[in-house]
This record gives sequence, C-alpha cells and structure tokens, in this order.
Amino acid sequence: MKTEALAAVLENLREKKPLILSLTNSVVQNFTANMLLAVGASPVMLNDAEECSQLLEVCGGGLLVNVGTLSHAQAEVMRRAVDAAHAAGVPWVLDPVAVGLLGFRTEFCRELLNLHPALIRGNASEIMALAGEAAGGRGTDTTEESSAAVQAARKLALQCGCTVLVTGPVDYVTDGVRLLALGNGDALMTRVTGVGCAMGALAAACVASAPDCFTGAAACAAILGLAGERAAARCPRPGSFAAALLDELDALTAADVVGFTRVVQDSEL
Amino acid sequence: MKTEALAAVLENLREKKPLILSLTNSVVQNFTANMLLAVGASPVMLNDAEECSQLLEVCGGGLLVNVGTLSHAQAEVMRRAVDAAHAAGVPWVLDPVAVGLLGFRTEFCRELLNLHPALIRGNASEIMALAGEAAGGRGTDTTEESSAAVQAARKLALQCGCTVLVTGPVDYVTDGVRLLALGNGDALMTRVTGVGCAMGALAAACVASAPDCFTGAAACAAILGLAGERAAARCPRPGSFAAALLDELDALTAADVVGFTRVVQDSEL
Amino acid sequence: MKTEALAAVLENLREKKPLILSLTNSVVQNFTANMLLAVGASPVMLNDAEECSQLLEVCGGGLLVNVGTLSHAQAEVMRRAVDAAHAAGVPWVLDPVAVGLLGFRTEFCRELLNLHPALIRGNASEIMALAGEAAGGRGTDTTEESSAAVQAARKLALQCGCTVLVTGPVDYVTDGVRLLALGNGDALMTRVTGVGCAMGALAAACVASAPDCFTGAAACAAILGLAGERAAARCPRPGSFAAALLDELDALTAADVVGFTRVVQDSEL
Repeated sequence: MKTEALAAVLENLREKKPLILSLTNSVVQNFTANMLLAVGASPVMLNDAEECSQLLEVCGGGLLVNVGTLSHAQAEVMRRAVDAAHAAGVPWVLDPVAVGLLGFRTEFCRELLNLHPALIRGNASEIMALAGEAAGGRGTDTTEESSAAVQAARKLALQCGCTVLVTGPVDYVTDGVRLLALGNGDALMTRVTGVGCAMGALAAACVASAPDCFTGAAACAAILGLAGERAAARCPRPGSFAAALLDELDALTAADVVGFTRVVQDSEL
Repeated sequence: MKTEALAAVLENLREKKPLILSLTNSVVQNFTANMLLAVGASPVMLNDAEECSQLLEVCGGGLLVNVGTLSHAQAEVMRRAVDAAHAAGVPWVLDPVAVGLLGFRTEFCRELLNLHPALIRGNASEIMALAGEAAGGRGTDTTEESSAAVQAARKLALQCGCTVLVTGPVDYVTDGVRLLALGNGDALMTRVTGVGCAMGALAAACVASAPDCFTGAAACAAILGLAGERAAARCPRPGSFAAALLDELDALTAADVVGFTRVVQDSEL
Repeated sequence: MKTEALAAVLENLREKKPLILSLTNSVVQNFTANMLLAVGASPVMLNDAEECSQLLEVCGGGLLVNVGTLSHAQAEVMRRAVDAAHAAGVPWVLDPVAVGLLGFRTEFCRELLNLHPALIRGNASEIMALAGEAAGGRGTDTTEESSAAVQAARKLALQCGCTVLVTGPVDYVTDGVRLLALGNGDALMTRVTGVGCAMGALAAACVASAPDCFTGAAACAAILGLAGERAAARCPRPGSFAAALLDELDALTAADVVGFTRVVQDSEL
C-alpha cells in the first residue's frame, strides 16, 4: 500500500464531504459528530427508522452501526437502516462494542454479520469474540494485544466477505487475504471517551471516499493515528488532548499522510 | 434597532437567569447546556412529559423544541410541553432541523406551526422548506444563502404570527413587517456540531429576557455572532474553537454588544 | 480523617481501575465518562436492563443512578440494575437530581431510598427535599447553602443506613454520626454542565476503591475539589475550564491530596 493512496482518500473525503449516518451510542454522539466535521465529512444522527431509510436513499454517503448503548428499540432501527443502506448501495460499518461480554449485543452482532457489513472495526477482544475465539474484554477495554486478533480478523473477513480493522497500539487491516499494519497513534487516545467509537464513523467516511474498503480502512487508521500522535505531542493530558485531536484532524494535510504514515507490515496472510 | 436594546437583553438575561427547558436532539444536549450556562442562563433537560409540564408551570422561563433526533415518543413529549408552555405563558422556540428532507419531522413541524411558536430559528433551507418553498437542505447543511430565505421567512412570520430568525453568514430577523440583518459570526461556527442547535436555546433565553420576540431574536444573533468571531480570532481550529466560543460568551459584555454588533440592514419588508 | 486516607483511595482507584456503570442523564454522559477516565477509573454506560445485570455480575465495580432525565423505561432499568448490584455486592450511589421540584422523580427517589444506596450525593436543596424538609431547588441549582442541609443529611443517613455527601462551596460528608466538611473547589464548577452529575460517578469509583463509604465520599470531594480549584486558577472561563478540570484530575497526585485537602470540620454530629 502506497501512502499516496491513503492521502487520496483524505482529499476525496474533503471534496465529497460524504454524509455519515451514525447510529451510535449516546455517550459519544457529540464527539463523533465533531470528529466527522473536523476531518471534513458531514454528520447526521437520527432515531426514527423511516427517517434513516429516507436519508440513505436520498443522500447516500455511509452508515455506522455502533452497539455501545443498544436497546431493543435501537436494534430494530439499526436492522431497518442496514436494509436501507443495502438498497441504496451505501456501505455500512459495524462497531461491535463490548461484544462477547454482554449477551444481547453479542446475539445482535452475530445477526448483523449476516447483513454484509463493508467493514468491522473493533479492538482485539471484540474481534476475537466476534470470531468466536474469546470471551471478550471488559467494556471498551481490550484485554488483548491487537496482534493477537489477526487470525480472528482474517477468519471474520473471509466469513463475511468484508474488511476488518483491529485497532490498538498497532492497527491491523485485513480483507482475509492481505494484511496491513499501521503504527501511528498514541495511548492518550484511550483516555478520552469515544475516540474508538468515533473512529468507526471516520471509517465509514473513509470507506465512502475510497476506491475499496481495504484502502478506506487503512486511510482511517492513518488519519486518526497521525492526528492523535500530533495532538498528544502538544497536549499530554486528556481534557485538552480531546480538543487538540479535533484541531489536528482539521489541520492534517494529504502531504502529512504521505510523509508520516508508518506502515509496519504489508503482506499476504 | 439600536444596539443598546440588544445589550439590554444580555444584561436582563444575566440578572434573571431564565430557566430554559430544551427538548432537543441527543447530539447537542451537552453543548446546549454549556452554552446556556456560559451566557448566564439556566439549562434544564427532561424526558418525561409530566415533569416538563410541572417545570414550566413552576419555573417559567423558556422552551426550545428541536427535532434533530425526533422519535414518536419525543414528539408526544414535545406536544404536551408546548401545551404546558402556553398554559404557563412561557414563550417557545421551534428549531426545525432538516425539515423538508425527512418526512416524519416535516409533518410534525407543520403541526407545530399551528401551536404558535414565539420564534422559529433555522438555516435558509429549513425556513424555505417550512414555508413550502423548497425541498430542504442536506441534514443540517443549508444549500441556500440566508438572503434567499428572506421572503420565505416573511411568509412564515405572517402565517404564524411569530418572529423568524434565519441564520447564516448574515442572520436575518423578521416579524413579517420589519427586517433586521446582522453580520457578526464566523464560518467556524458551522464546523462544531450543535452551534446552530444551541443557538435555538440561546434564542429562547433571549426571548425570555427581551421586551419582545423580535428584539430577543436579534440579541441572540448579535451575542452568538460576536462570541463566535472573537473565538475564531483566537482559535482557528474547531476543537479549541468550541471551548473558546463558550469562554467568549462568558466574557462578552453589554458594552461589547453596543459597540461591535454589525447591523447590516434595518428596514420594513 | 487524615488526608493520607483520602490519598490512599486515589491510589487504590488508579490501581484497581474499577468499572463504573453510570445510569445517568443524557446531558452529561460524555463528560461523566471523561471524568472517570481522567481520574483513572473505567466508565461503562448501558441501556438494557439485562446487560446491566450481566455487567455488574461479571465485572463488579460500582453503580451510579442519576435521575436527571428520568423516563419510565429508564426507571425500570435502574430498579433492575440496583437489584443486580445488591446481588453482586456492588455499592451503588444515588444522585437525586432536582428531587422535590418534580413529582415523578421525587416518588422514584423515595422508592430508591428503600433499596439501600451506599451513598447519596446531592446539593443542599436536593438533600433537604429527599429528607422531607424542603420543596427543593430550581433544576440543578440549589437555593440553599450546603450547611443548611447538614441536619437533613444526618436524618437521611440514619434513615437509610448510608453515607450522604452534600456538595456546595463546602462539601459535607456524614454517616449520621460523624461529620466531615471539606473546603476545596471553585464556583466555576457550577458553570459547566455535568460537574455535579459526574461527581456522582466519581463518588461511585471512590467508594469502590475505599475501605468504607464515608472515606470514599470524602476522597471524592477532596479529589474533585482540588482538581477544580487548580483548573480554575489556570482557566477562569467555563469552556476551557471544562477541559482543564479533566487535565487536573489526570495530573492530581496522592501527595497533592495529602498536602492540599482542606478539612474544615471533623466532628461527631
């Protein structure tokens, strides 16, 4: 993967400003919308299933499904939105927050796996749990290194015909055949609520702006990792870091992505 | 309109600290509450219709109805809160987010027009859609210049007997007879989620602190525009800008409003 | 109370990183999660009653019940979560926001008093209303000095067999027998939405990390008060103060708690 291809996703995103419908948990809605705005995308959040369908039909863009504060009512809205996304040719991203640990969402995420997500984004515990390999982490904390989940990610990608993005100190992207590892980012990104969840929305925006899901997922990891490490260099505490992360997403250029993305591994699986 | 009249609204708001009940979308609740606190008002948000009625009856103040993440359950709470506001003599503000684009909220907003809002705040696309003149924008993005909506605003104001505030690079206030255009603000205000939505709550606070709705709406546009341009001058990126906007609302004085409000137009329609 | 005992709670919290399930109002979820992360605890928020029970059973930690935007559906989730907390031996904290003023939550909070909270945190108006002594404040504003609520807090603590934390310019902690008054903090803490509500979650984290509820509540008041006064010294406006408060919680050391906690009163009631 040439870093120029990742930079092209950022440029395309800023030109197209894709509308990203985020059906996400209530804790991170504001930060998710602000991350999308900062990078140059256009956020929308809705509660009504029919409005979701209408929006996807009229505006296209991308869809995020994040199960962090799932309720039975929201699950039904998500099912219908995923159907509408398929009908409209809109790619959708699954963020299986805390899957494995909690029964309701685990069952629901397994159901969603049959509905052809373009991309699944999770930490190592979540990806392993979703692939049936582990019991899952503790809430949004992962108890595994991201590298431990590479085989689970491969299995999941092949099973669903999708791309999987495993996030952690190193981010792994795989479509089941190819594996890309990216090394940007900073540990402070785990000290602000919603950075991971908002990354799912950013991934939807990148996928909607990329030639394929694999490139979109890789661009997402590069863009957020670069912004995160730059923000952490200026603001080493979590409150000011959160604002700095948005500032750096806004400031990030295509040339930054070309020059500073750290590709740690790029190989066949 | 003398700018002294707008400054008097700010002073009165800080003295009265009106309680503003915001029935608003879930994305912007936190920022809305913080904007109200920063300017000197007192925010409340509730989910239960009976509690809304009780609060309005006991505390007065103002009411905001923002349909950004409307659900059928929330629509019912809003109906009952508007009734309670009328019973208590409390002015209410309608923010018809993304009206025109999405069916459920468009129908609901048309229903609400019959319930005598004191003020309607929207961008050009929303005001035109509500007046039946256009299909509406894309989410909260407007596809029209605010000046294009002046005739729609006039029509809406006369139809509902209310004041209309069209926000954009220039903000327009009209009661159907008089037109005031205010030129403060900065484009960064569209790069932070919820600035427009929180402006609806600020408008409710200003209306509750003004001799009439027209003056309240104008004061709202001046106050937020001034704070926005000052924040942007210090913080040109969206993450730090959001915090700076709250800081500048807190710091803004009546003398600032008198001296720096830019009245672009003040005329009969 | 030696300040070393309060510092030990902070150290223990950072080592154990207790999982705090916050069933709280929608306005403050993001800030609550960020406050818990900043201090070193691990936040979780859920909407589904069964998932709440599972989490408490598997992960332990602490539970916050905050009734700020109570709905009938959320009340039912809270009832079941409190039951699960008892079954799992997890302490739970009640934050009775605006109790007394609004009927539904007042009745619900009285019901919850029978379910053995480990700690009740409120402002003076709320504690007095809950003890049956006053009609309550205006929303989250208290209309009483915190000292006025000391007798109500004593009564409530004895009635429920719990600890009561009355927050204000001076914070009071009592178990009905002993009274501790702590004088740290800054008035800016009332100008950012959710500082008080997030304090309930911080209290749950401290109680889960303390030898007893009284020490946990006192540590919570000391930690937040110290971070608040340090943040206010650097950032005198509310927008930047909110970020600074999180930064200072992250930066606060056990030595700071030992050296700078102001114990105003420590006596038998």
